[in-house]
Amino acid sequence: MGMHQYIKSLSDLENIIRLSGKFKFEEHSVAAHSFKVTQIAQFLGTVEEQAGNKVDWRSLYEKALNHDYTELFIGDIKTPVKYADPALRDKLAKVEEKMAKNFIETVIPEEFQAAYVNRMKEGKDESLEGQILSVADKIDLLYESFGEIQKGNPEPVFDEIYEESLSTIVQFKHLTCVQYLIKEILPDLLSGDYMNQAQIQVISQRIINEMEEKIN
Amino acid sequence: MGMHQYIKSLSDLENIIRLSGKFKFEEHSVAAHSFKVTQIAQFLGTVEEQAGNKVDWRSLYEKALNHDYTELFIGDIKTPVKYADPALRDKLAKVEEKMAKNFIETVIPEEFQAAYVNRMKEGKDESLEGQILSVADKIDLLYESFGEIQKGNPEPVFDEIYEESLSTIVQFKHLTCVQYLIKEILPDLLSGDYMNQAQIQVISQRIINEMEEKIN
Amino acid sequence: MGMHQYIKSLSDLENIIRLSGKFKFEEHSVAAHSFKVTQIAQFLGTVEEQAGNKVDWRSLYEKALNHDYTELFIGDIKTPVKYADPALRDKLAKVEEKMAKNFIETVIPEEFQAAYVNRMKEGKDESLEGQILSVADKIDLLYESFGEIQKGNPEPVFDEIYEESLSTIVQFKHLTCVQYLIKEILPDLLSGDYMNQAQIQVISQRIINEMEEKIN
Amino acid sequence: MGMHQYIKSLSDLENIIRLSGKFKFEEHSVAAHSFKVTQIAQFLGTVEEQAGNKVDWRSLYEKALNHDYTELFIGDIKTPVKYADPALRDKLAKVEEKMAKNFIETVIPEEFQAAYVNRMKEGKDESLEGQILSVADKIDLLYESFGEIQKGNPEPVFDEIYEESLSTIVQFKHLTCVQYLIKEILPDLLSGDYMNQAQIQVISQRIINEMEEKIN
Amino acid sequence: MGMHQYIKSLSDLENIIRLSGKFKFEEHSVAAHSFKVTQIAQFLGTVEEQAGNKVDWRSLYEKALNHDYTELFIGDIKTPVKYADPALRDKLAKVEEKMAKNFIETVIPEEFQAAYVNRMKEGKDESLEGQILSVADKIDLLYESFGEIQKGNPEPVFDEIYEESLSTIVQFKHLTCVQYLIKEILPDLLSGDYMNQAQIQVISQRIINEMEEKIN
Amino acid sequence: MGMHQYIKSLSDLENIIRLSGKFKFEEHSVAAHSFKVTQIAQFLGTVEEQAGNKVDWRSLYEKALNHDYTELFIGDIKTPVKYADPALRDKLAKVEEKMAKNFIETVIPEEFQAAYVNRMKEGKDESLEGQILSVADKIDLLYESFGEIQKGNPEPVFDEIYEESLSTIVQFKHLTCVQYLIKEILPDLLSGDYMNQAQIQVISQRIINEMEEKIN
Repeated sequence: MGMHQYIKSLSDLENIIRLSGKFKFEEHSVAAHSFKVTQIAQFLGTVEEQAGNKVDWRSLYEKALNHDYTELFIGDIKTPVKYADPALRDKLAKVEEKMAKNFIETVIPEEFQAAYVNRMKEGKDESLEGQILSVADKIDLLYESFGEIQKGNPEPVFDEIYEESLSTIVQFKHLTCVQYLIKEILPDLLSGDYMNQAQIQVISQRIINEMEEKIN
Repeated sequence: MGMHQYIKSLSDLENIIRLSGKFKFEEHSVAAHSFKVTQIAQFLGTVEEQAGNKVDWRSLYEKALNHDYTELFIGDIKTPVKYADPALRDKLAKVEEKMAKNFIETVIPEEFQAAYVNRMKEGKDESLEGQILSVADKIDLLYESFGEIQKGNPEPVFDEIYEESLSTIVQFKHLTCVQYLIKEILPDLLSGDYMNQAQIQVISQRIINEMEEKIN
Repeated sequence: MGMHQYIKSLSDLENIIRLSGKFKFEEHSVAAHSFKVTQIAQFLGTVEEQAGNKVDWRSLYEKALNHDYTELFIGDIKTPVKYADPALRDKLAKVEEKMAKNFIETVIPEEFQAAYVNRMKEGKDESLEGQILSVADKIDLLYESFGEIQKGNPEPVFDEIYEESLSTIVQFKHLTCVQYLIKEILPDLLSGDYMNQAQIQVISQRIINEMEEKIN
Repeated sequence: MGMHQYIKSLSDLENIIRLSGKFKFEEHSVAAHSFKVTQIAQFLGTVEEQAGNKVDWRSLYEKALNHDYTELFIGDIKTPVKYADPALRDKLAKVEEKMAKNFIETVIPEEFQAAYVNRMKEGKDESLEGQILSVADKIDLLYESFGEIQKGNPEPVFDEIYEESLSTIVQFKHLTCVQYLIKEILPDLLSGDYMNQAQIQVISQRIINEMEEKIN
Repeated sequence: MGMHQYIKSLSDLENIIRLSGKFKFEEHSVAAHSFKVTQIAQFLGTVEEQAGNKVDWRSLYEKALNHDYTELFIGDIKTPVKYADPALRDKLAKVEEKMAKNFIETVIPEEFQAAYVNRMKEGKDESLEGQILSVADKIDLLYESFGEIQKGNPEPVFDEIYEESLSTIVQFKHLTCVQYLIKEILPDLLSGDYMNQAQIQVISQRIINEMEEKIN
Repeated sequence: MGMHQYIKSLSDLENIIRLSGKFKFEEHSVAAHSFKVTQIAQFLGTVEEQAGNKVDWRSLYEKALNHDYTELFIGDIKTPVKYADPALRDKLAKVEEKMAKNFIETVIPEEFQAAYVNRMKEGKDESLEGQILSVADKIDLLYESFGEIQKGNPEPVFDEIYEESLSTIVQFKHLTCVQYLIKEILPDLLSGDYMNQAQIQVISQRIINEMEEKIN
């Protein structure tokens, strides 16, 4: 055991493909997703800092980089399973925690255990960094689903994921970085000339409008 | 909704890769696995029939063909998760059942619902056909893991899967077809000239010996 | 030799990709195709049974599951080759039979040979089960080609395959299950919003109309 | 129709994978194979020219480049099928010829038809260039099968292909280029340190010895 | 070293994917590209010969077949890098030459070195054969980019590549084969019914018109 | 342009495969590599911090996460090209810098340009964080090449990469984290039972010995 086991396990994250069970034009591994989420979080943090907010950069990078490591223990449980029953959801969260704890105790040498306990706990807390992670995770999912819609993937599940992602993002509309996203990035994403454009613009506009209504 | 939805979903089973999160020389989809398990069950049924046992062929084919369909709802939850906590295991089984029931009620037209309720329930019961399914499922897993070991896959998880599969199979040693497997097929599998041969022969022999000791 | 050889050969069917020589968004192996055809045949059998017709389930499952096993001996001969010359077609059929016979005699142990002779002979006979297999085989091909058309595959060969599949299916219009397909499933397949929709609806309607004219 | 159709068809040769139905570590398309055979033929021609033999370069390149184009019409018929029955083999050859002729008449504009009739006919004739093509085709197959053996592919079919390829090559031992291959290239191929080395060296030595016995 | 090394290196060209760093529906290796360019050059040569021009076939085949072999030494340097600085471009060309020279001296046996020096030097010179190679290389790139546009690839880079390829081709408008391409092949490529058709027809027409204006 | 362009470009890093032009059992994208290097750097930083050294975590994460982003502009130039000529190497570095500058000026909005200038400059400087990045980058390469050797890849290039990586790492032997790697991680990597084990242990031991001789 020891850190060799940990380094080797990073490569296992290259062998887990996201959104399995649906035809996709482009596949994304958990490793690549983690890279992109950390890059996006880095940008969102830059926006917040620019706006005068204090960012704990160590915490932000750490949260984003490690946020999906525990998929190695749990596997890819379908979202509807998690939400089918609140009691089950709690149980699963506890098992995940227990397995992460067990992994750390058997694999990570004692002197580094405290650091990795921190890295493997749920990062999406109420701190600014936790909120940025929640947004960054959904932005990557938004781009993944948009990529499929734009290439003509006929599976309606990608419309649903796009919608669910954007809806979650706008719940963080109090963050400057989310306002930047909606004002400066989303219009670029939706412009251009691609398949299913009208449909995705309608979905997006509806979500943005609902958000604005709530603000006013 | 309706049966179009069901036929389309069969193709989703081509997009779920078994044993995700580990490097594999050869990938197997749930659809291909289901085909192979049904073929293997067909052979095991033939052995039983030859030995004078009555096989309910409709039930055998039906159990084997449909045994992994519910992976579509549940996803690929890692085995250790399922076994981490008996209460969790029960909860997951109940959720799986509930989701299958819900799927049938919304997708399958009323006149066919009874047939599909039967097809989606757990097939590995105490009947001869249920036992054959248990064995056939593990034989395919045995071949999958053996294929990796034989090609030189250095991941120890394939040794563990091979061992666990064979151990489960010998628990059904009272079945004629399992005796046939151990006596006539396993020696052929282990013969030839390939990497890691000594190691896999030792594991196999130990499991067979333990079985024989219990019999005597 | 022996049954080990047979079980191992099942995996070879995962390595034969259907419709080779054309760009495809989604590839399908002979193993996955066999699974889907058996599932579809299971459903068609359910429709027939529901309508009061007697289905020999053992025969139906057996025919569907094994119908493409002989591709292992013959390979993927292009359809135009088979039809180029009636004498050649006969010769090829005879060679296929001879190779299957030879395979059974050298690989399958004597006590199981009778069972496998039956499983490897052409299943598409005049029985209800044989007709259901003919239809199920074409329904999977219909869905495969439709999947390419719907994703925007510009190869005209997929239009031709779609048309040829549907034309063959409607030749079995005396079966209740084919009537169900045309009335209940096809409209769902063709609905929704996807590329090349107008074109595929026109083809489908023309074939259905021709069928109805013949009935009246 | 017209030459656009021909240029587009070249890409279809990228979608035909050689030796389908067997697990392979490395897949080779007919397009890539044709490139390698032409490169190898170019080298063998250089050896012959160096040895003072007259090489018709236009013919050599043309034969090698086009030698597998007709796989587009015929598909990948398993070798044992072709050899199952001499009458069948003749029939298949005639059908192939007929389909090539038909393709040329419908696709190739009249002014280029003579050139393409020549390019699509069987190139492995008795001329020096035809013999070099026969050898080059087998050298690429030798390297393909060796690549699998060397990486530890447990399928015995690759040993058989290696053996069959080398045996065919030594039948052309009267060619200077074949003597060069056996004396200068084969020892390099077989040297180094890789899996299954002893076994492949034994096979190779036996074939070379048999050749030398026949010469003496 | 020796020719074994050279034959083995041909397979490395199957492992270099063109246009890396962009999502593609269809990937093309350097080996397959080289095959297609040689086939296209063969056709263009036929057009020139038909028009009464003398074609040095040995040179034409040799240039086309070997034109990208040096990608093995240099790798896939992005085009903008090459053009960023004329001095850099010269330096890179010199390094490529030096590495090819070095490769030949260490790998190719002395008696064949002269032949391979010739095969590895830049083939796109002012000769008719050199010009045909320039055109054939761009025709394959035109078809590659068209294939992506036609399947709905939303990356604008494929429009740029299409445009750049066609613009380069029309610079050789003094060649009969280029006039044939524009008059007889391009209209077929652009006809049919596919995504983004209007857009690609506009680009094509503009380039052709600019060419014609220059002629008049 | 704007940040949408930047977020989209992250996905292009999933489409660049490392070490192109060689057969690999397992492929790694630049995106996945960047994730693993950042994870490894995170661990090495933890070792340094534990040993009482001050780590600038923001700088460490930033350097590791962004260190290969510029591969998007430059492409995958083979290492021997870079080293063929010192003047060329300088020129290439200047072009890379110029292209990064140009990218930032056209894509990144003005208010974020300073942040991205910093992120895209060469991170492997003399600071502790720069040195950790140099080591982490080579550790991932060490694991990549080891993974191929261990699975039986016969290409000698992976031995060379393994050797070069370890040699570079030991040049940083003054770092506590490198000492930890050699003492605690490397023995675990080299233990177990795999192909080519003797050979890789000899190489490793020689490099470690040379390092120790220099220290004493």
